[in-house]
Amino acid sequence: MTEVVFDFDRAGRIGLDEAVFCAGKSPAQLAFILDQAQARKAGLLLTRLDETLARELPERHRAALDCCPVSRTAFFGPLRPVAVRGAVAVVAAGTTDAPVAREAARTLRHAGVEATLIVDVGVAGLWRLMERIEEIRNFPVVIAVAGMDAALASVLGGLTASTLICVPTSIGYGAAEGGRTALNAMLASCAPGLVVTNIDSGYGAASAALRVIGQARRLAGIVGGDRAG
Amino acid sequence: MTEVVFDFDRAGRIGLDEAVFCAGKSPAQLAFILDQAQARKAGLLLTRLDETLARELPERHRAALDCCPVSRTAFFGPLRPVAVRGAVAVVAAGTTDAPVAREAARTLRHAGVEATLIVDVGVAGLWRLMERIEEIRNFPVVIAVAGMDAALASVLGGLTASTLICVPTSIGYGAAEGGRTALNAMLASCAPGLVVTNIDSGYGAASAALRVIGQARRLAGIVGGDRAG
Amino acid sequence: MTEVVFDFDRAGRIGLDEAVFCAGKSPAQLAFILDQAQARKAGLLLTRLDETLARELPERHRAALDCCPVSRTAFFGPLRPVAVRGAVAVVAAGTTDAPVAREAARTLRHAGVEATLIVDVGVAGLWRLMERIEEIRNFPVVIAVAGMDAALASVLGGLTASTLICVPTSIGYGAAEGGRTALNAMLASCAPGLVVTNIDSGYGAASAALRVIGQARRLAGIVGGDRAG
Amino acid sequence: MTEVVFDFDRAGRIGLDEAVFCAGKSPAQLAFILDQAQARKAGLLLTRLDETLARELPERHRAALDCCPVSRTAFFGPLRPVAVRGAVAVVAAGTTDAPVAREAARTLRHAGVEATLIVDVGVAGLWRLMERIEEIRNFPVVIAVAGMDAALASVLGGLTASTLICVPTSIGYGAAEGGRTALNAMLASCAPGLVVTNIDSGYGAASAALRVIGQARRLAGIVGGDRAG
Amino acid sequence: MTEVVFDFDRAGRIGLDEAVFCAGKSPAQLAFILDQAQARKAGLLLTRLDETLARELPERHRAALDCCPVSRTAFFGPLRPVAVRGAVAVVAAGTTDAPVAREAARTLRHAGVEATLIVDVGVAGLWRLMERIEEIRNFPVVIAVAGMDAALASVLGGLTASTLICVPTSIGYGAAEGGRTALNAMLASCAPGLVVTNIDSGYGAASAALRVIGQARRLAGIVGGDRAG
Amino acid sequence: MTEVVFDFDRAGRIGLDEAVFCAGKSPAQLAFILDQAQARKAGLLLTRLDETLARELPERHRAALDCCPVSRTAFFGPLRPVAVRGAVAVVAAGTTDAPVAREAARTLRHAGVEATLIVDVGVAGLWRLMERIEEIRNFPVVIAVAGMDAALASVLGGLTASTLICVPTSIGYGAAEGGRTALNAMLASCAPGLVVTNIDSGYGAASAALRVIGQARRLAGIVGGDRAG
Amino acid sequence: MTEVVFDFDRAGRIGLDEAVFCAGKSPAQLAFILDQAQARKAGLLLTRLDETLARELPERHRAALDCCPVSRTAFFGPLRPVAVRGAVAVVAAGTTDAPVAREAARTLRHAGVEATLIVDVGVAGLWRLMERIEEIRNFPVVIAVAGMDAALASVLGGLTASTLICVPTSIGYGAAEGGRTALNAMLASCAPGLVVTNIDSGYGAASAALRVIGQARRLAGIVGGDRAG
Amino acid sequence: MTEVVFDFDRAGRIGLDEAVFCAGKSPAQLAFILDQAQARKAGLLLTRLDETLARELPERHRAALDCCPVSRTAFFGPLRPVAVRGAVAVVAAGTTDAPVAREAARTLRHAGVEATLIVDVGVAGLWRLMERIEEIRNFPVVIAVAGMDAALASVLGGLTASTLICVPTSIGYGAAEGGRTALNAMLASCAPGLVVTNIDSGYGAASAALRVIGQARRLAGIVGGDRAG
Repeated sequence: MTEVVFDFDRAGRIGLDEAVFCAGKSPAQLAFILDQAQARKAGLLLTRLDETLARELPERHRAALDCCPVSRTAFFGPLRPVAVRGAVAVVAAGTTDAPVAREAARTLRHAGVEATLIVDVGVAGLWRLMERIEEIRNFPVVIAVAGMDAALASVLGGLTASTLICVPTSIGYGAAEGGRTALNAMLASCAPGLVVTNIDSGYGAASAALRVIGQARRLAGIVGGDRAG
Repeated sequence: MTEVVFDFDRAGRIGLDEAVFCAGKSPAQLAFILDQAQARKAGLLLTRLDETLARELPERHRAALDCCPVSRTAFFGPLRPVAVRGAVAVVAAGTTDAPVAREAARTLRHAGVEATLIVDVGVAGLWRLMERIEEIRNFPVVIAVAGMDAALASVLGGLTASTLICVPTSIGYGAAEGGRTALNAMLASCAPGLVVTNIDSGYGAASAALRVIGQARRLAGIVGGDRAG
Repeated sequence: MTEVVFDFDRAGRIGLDEAVFCAGKSPAQLAFILDQAQARKAGLLLTRLDETLARELPERHRAALDCCPVSRTAFFGPLRPVAVRGAVAVVAAGTTDAPVAREAARTLRHAGVEATLIVDVGVAGLWRLMERIEEIRNFPVVIAVAGMDAALASVLGGLTASTLICVPTSIGYGAAEGGRTALNAMLASCAPGLVVTNIDSGYGAASAALRVIGQARRLAGIVGGDRAG
Repeated sequence: MTEVVFDFDRAGRIGLDEAVFCAGKSPAQLAFILDQAQARKAGLLLTRLDETLARELPERHRAALDCCPVSRTAFFGPLRPVAVRGAVAVVAAGTTDAPVAREAARTLRHAGVEATLIVDVGVAGLWRLMERIEEIRNFPVVIAVAGMDAALASVLGGLTASTLICVPTSIGYGAAEGGRTALNAMLASCAPGLVVTNIDSGYGAASAALRVIGQARRLAGIVGGDRAG
Repeated sequence: MTEVVFDFDRAGRIGLDEAVFCAGKSPAQLAFILDQAQARKAGLLLTRLDETLARELPERHRAALDCCPVSRTAFFGPLRPVAVRGAVAVVAAGTTDAPVAREAARTLRHAGVEATLIVDVGVAGLWRLMERIEEIRNFPVVIAVAGMDAALASVLGGLTASTLICVPTSIGYGAAEGGRTALNAMLASCAPGLVVTNIDSGYGAASAALRVIGQARRLAGIVGGDRAG
Repeated sequence: MTEVVFDFDRAGRIGLDEAVFCAGKSPAQLAFILDQAQARKAGLLLTRLDETLARELPERHRAALDCCPVSRTAFFGPLRPVAVRGAVAVVAAGTTDAPVAREAARTLRHAGVEATLIVDVGVAGLWRLMERIEEIRNFPVVIAVAGMDAALASVLGGLTASTLICVPTSIGYGAAEGGRTALNAMLASCAPGLVVTNIDSGYGAASAALRVIGQARRLAGIVGGDRAG
Repeated sequence: MTEVVFDFDRAGRIGLDEAVFCAGKSPAQLAFILDQAQARKAGLLLTRLDETLARELPERHRAALDCCPVSRTAFFGPLRPVAVRGAVAVVAAGTTDAPVAREAARTLRHAGVEATLIVDVGVAGLWRLMERIEEIRNFPVVIAVAGMDAALASVLGGLTASTLICVPTSIGYGAAEGGRTALNAMLASCAPGLVVTNIDSGYGAASAALRVIGQARRLAGIVGGDRAG
Repeated sequence: MTEVVFDFDRAGRIGLDEAVFCAGKSPAQLAFILDQAQARKAGLLLTRLDETLARELPERHRAALDCCPVSRTAFFGPLRPVAVRGAVAVVAAGTTDAPVAREAARTLRHAGVEATLIVDVGVAGLWRLMERIEEIRNFPVVIAVAGMDAALASVLGGLTASTLICVPTSIGYGAAEGGRTALNAMLASCAPGLVVTNIDSGYGAASAALRVIGQARRLAGIVGGDRAG
């Protein structure tokens, strides 16, 4: 099993724990990683963990997993306590975007950041978004999750000053092109300053948010007293 | 010049005049068509008429052209009077979408329909759209012109009951993909009942609006008294 | 189940009921929506309802479903009576386009509009279309459903003055590119004034037709007496 | 100039003369080929010959060129007499398809085959095609030239038993995708037995027709007396 | 079952029987067509007939099917005798191209034309092709079937004067792009006069060959005595 | 000139000034906007300002422009003083990426943020990056600009904890696909937490950085004292 | 079974044994090839051999197979001894790239070349690569296997003088586009002299390495004494 | 001019000189690099040097340039003598591929390797290739340059044991897709062990050949006496 060289020191280097992307890994490869983590008493985040794969893990590992079937994530081993609240909102356009939104929220939770989840506020019924826009504006970081036309991202971009991390989802059919249309629409948004992650990558958006949070005090020190968000 | 078989009877068949798509036509081909039209005393709409091509036409034709350089359209010969007012709004997201919006308005005008043009109401500054949304709702037919993320179309689709004909434009760069992203976003819109034309086809959207207008009395007769828009 | 914020007031706002797009929804999410609808005594249209998903619904919901397996649609709860007849024809090129055509017809029926279905009139055997073209011309609104080369749309566009809403289907293989070729061919049609919906979106085409129907009386009032379709 | 190894014996091998595709060739390379041809007293067909390039040729070559600016073809040196008439019709959907149609006709003429050109019979005005369909059916080989939706090809395919060689053109914009849509629509046609060449390749279609013509007597001998077209 | 309007008169119009493309059809739709054919005592060709679908047909139809599992074709009902031999070779690059090659051969056989099948002569081992090239040259019509790089088509195009109908196959992975690369390579071939059908369309290639064969005597009469292949 | 509705209040709403994207605007449209700005004594950032367009502006406007030809940006009117230093590094892979990097730096400067520019540190000569990596790590926000394979982004992502905003550039040819490859590589990066903007959008990356800076003090207040970057 | 013409003499012609690509082959076709090989006492390499297919082979063949399930390769019959050691390193970015890396190593082993496998050294944790870079530099030929952004290839290209054969893998999702992004990034690499094979083609990379190895002595003789790597 | 950090030590690290890719560089940037090179008395290779850019260089640089207009390359300053002959053949399919083939040959020459250029041997006239195949087989390294269908690469791959580096060119139109088809066809070749560079990258292919040559003696030492090419 020398094919796995896990990067346990990543957090020390870039402030982010390495997570285990489970899709495409065999049960043996995954068990090898979990054994290493247990030996180090390290907590791990698992993403894209299909139930089939989870069931093929040894019993000693399955018992230590805290699984979320909607987002296909799992916490393995010790979980750090929540240290940050009120920093991040995860806003999703539709019900079917929930798995991606939850992957983001769970990734944040694993790093000790509790996010607020706001789902089904797509712009086809703009009132749903408008009812909650003031609440959303209160979060310095907003993760916007949307598929199909991804119009939610542009509308949010024009209504809030928050850091806005956009996640296109593969929801939809035909011209949605498996998320490529949402991705392109977010990149080509008429609203300024949106940034985008890979399709369906709730994990990537959460990691980006963690970079922003991790630098906040340093950046605030540089920005100084003459500027407020 | 037997290569041109102009369809002068189109209006009798499908209620739409044939227009002359000038791009790719030689001055000689175009002059041949204009001569035929003059002989029949028929008015013609010219689209995609570049200034270079217009200048190479014989003087007898240039004098009979009423050109709009922004939309690259021209009216040739007699122009029918305005017969319909208040039926169609052409709503464009940005200033750079104006050529396409004007092509739609000019095509409608050539058919005797005066449209109202509302430009620069993209959703990056949602207040601009909201200031005019009541006015827009008053039109039974709305042509929405937008490039890049085309979020205007989805927002309009959720706010108005009008027939909504969407025109993606080739405005933008990179992920805008020459209008393909706007096209796909309109097709995959989360708002229901939007219909879409080819990229930059203000002419196509106007023609679709003319089909709707041309059938209005017949359709109203079928729908009868128990249903109002 | 706070992830579902159903838009029950959509009809009041844009004249269209919200429908439930079932693909990607879990049985629990769907049941939650149906419970809400039952509590409001609202009728609902369900689209893309796979049999597997339908079978996993609670018995109290299954009994209230009127399913069409060909189109994968279902009516849930009270169904409004037919109020409009003779306004819409749904014309499909081939037998394999029937599921999409039926999705359109069922969506219209849910809104009280009875459409006429004309299937297998593709242009490879032009006589099949020509035998019924006079009948088709009688409908103010025509929904054209076709895959592969989608030539039916262009031929119809040249033969009828009706409002022509085109639905590309994902029928075909190889160069049909899952409906992308039909979509592009309809958008780039040589016939004027066609409008297009997403691939396989019978629901979208019907919704567009309902916008046209809903505005007919208002539009007829504007157009006035000097113009007939 | 050793970089040119002209295939003067191609006709002996496959029944087709090598033609000179001029795009991308320098005046020096082209002059080198023409000199070789003159030395052998061989006639040559030049395709994609831009006026700029033609003007940069030596006077001794320019004088021997019979140019057609519409199709950008030229005959160089001796031209064989017409040997075949009535075998091939070149049918083009629109006026702007004429350059490609003429490239096909000129390629055939260079090989001694006189084709009949029928232009501007696209299906948006189906009557134009129907007026000439009996004439078209008389040709054993039909080359169909069309851009945009290319619906002409499918309609012809359903109405004639002729060998049908389809040439997509790069005419159109947006969803026409530079001819890719026409190409795909022809390949995915609902009519059986169409064959297709590269986009804008009038030369390719004519070469295919020459293969069919060159084999006609041999094939007729095999097919024998019990089968007539 | 009014959704099926079978084109039984196609042969009289264009010289080709309508075949039944089974993919996407339900057992009921297929049985309806077969019943119609039996009532007319017409023989039918079925293509893309998966074993699963075949097994779901009524016993009265299954007994009348002559199935070829490799090509997924079936003959239904009376089969006409072989009338033409030696006219067509079907040449395939690799073993995995055999299903498409056999679909072509079976389609020809259904129309009374017996083709010669030559498989596994791809250019990676050029000697395999060279051993049989003289034999191939004897056929007035050659159908070339190849996937991946499709180099066989170009090599054949340079070595034979026959009518050359090319079928790209979806064989291969990665850059083969499901047959799109083979399709494009055939269309962009450096050899002149190749024509191409849809990906995997053995049926289409055979239909094109039947058009050529059906016109052979008429064309030979026009070409006359001064020209031989 | 009612087609321009400038969003002068954007900064109050989302903390970002509206900039003027000049590509596609006419001199008249641009002059109209500049006049409005002058009337309000507002400073403006102009992007994608080609020299040709700049020269066609009225003299009263040209004199008030501070142009940077490399990045095609201009400051118009009063420029706010620098308020933030040491917060942002703009790191570019190659010399040809400099225009995009400078567009980012100029956008930041217009908002009062002075960025440090580090150019030509692509990974083909990894020592160039390694010589400066400690310097780069000192910036809480890093904008990474790279074309072609965009490997710089992934390497930076693995070496620094900073917020990492990636800008793909259209540099390169062939498989670089106009920046699409760099875009996709950044999105699919093996390093976690990268976010991406549109191709060549230095302006977009700077706007995103301004969102992060604008929220820094608020976010630092939430994160509190127990967490440092 | 005349559809298989195995190229047993390939090694004599180009120095490479023909391997059997099993995907898409039927058990009967595969058994036919294995019988031929047994009759010649030739050893064979099988690639893309799914377990399902392997199980359907006759017992006489299954017993002679040495299978590797990770890489889906098998050795059939006699295996030549290892003749070359220390010439090739196979370097893979991540654990999930191991199947492709092993296909390369197994192909080399079948030809008598023992490769060194180095896995999970992707650049997200650059230290993993740097720990082994001196070891990698010792190999004259390096096969680099990577998916997603494929940044490993560019970094290796800048750090080693070895012949560098790059294999993109289909690992990843969304913007990874099934390996197309890794392929393009390798082709557009900022490091010079990388060469690339098809996606997931460990076999292709090994074959290319065997070409280099097979020519080494001849090439060294030409290069002579004045040049060392 | 701090934006240029030239990698003058590249040769010491990876055995390849850094070349200057001139497209997209300004005259000032290029002059800066040339000054640095002159100061170090280093010879430089310039690629993609358009005549316009060359003319804008200072006279002191222009005089030191040895330009090849066909390949748009230039040698600047001292040129090393030829050290290797007979190692590399550059084989191009058509006359229009010559610029790319010459870029490869010039890059090799700059590194002291004299290549043999063999042009216009595409497979449409297979005799041209067959006349020279024995000569080609004599080279341990073959660079194959081809556009359109790129069939030359596959045919060469089946006929020679040499290391085969393939360069797709952007020659052709329509389905040639700017070189993408040639690229894909080379990657998906039915012949084993081909490797591929970016489209039009003669420089890349030459660099890869230099890697092979640079490792030849080391590799020959490993391979030892029991193996000959």
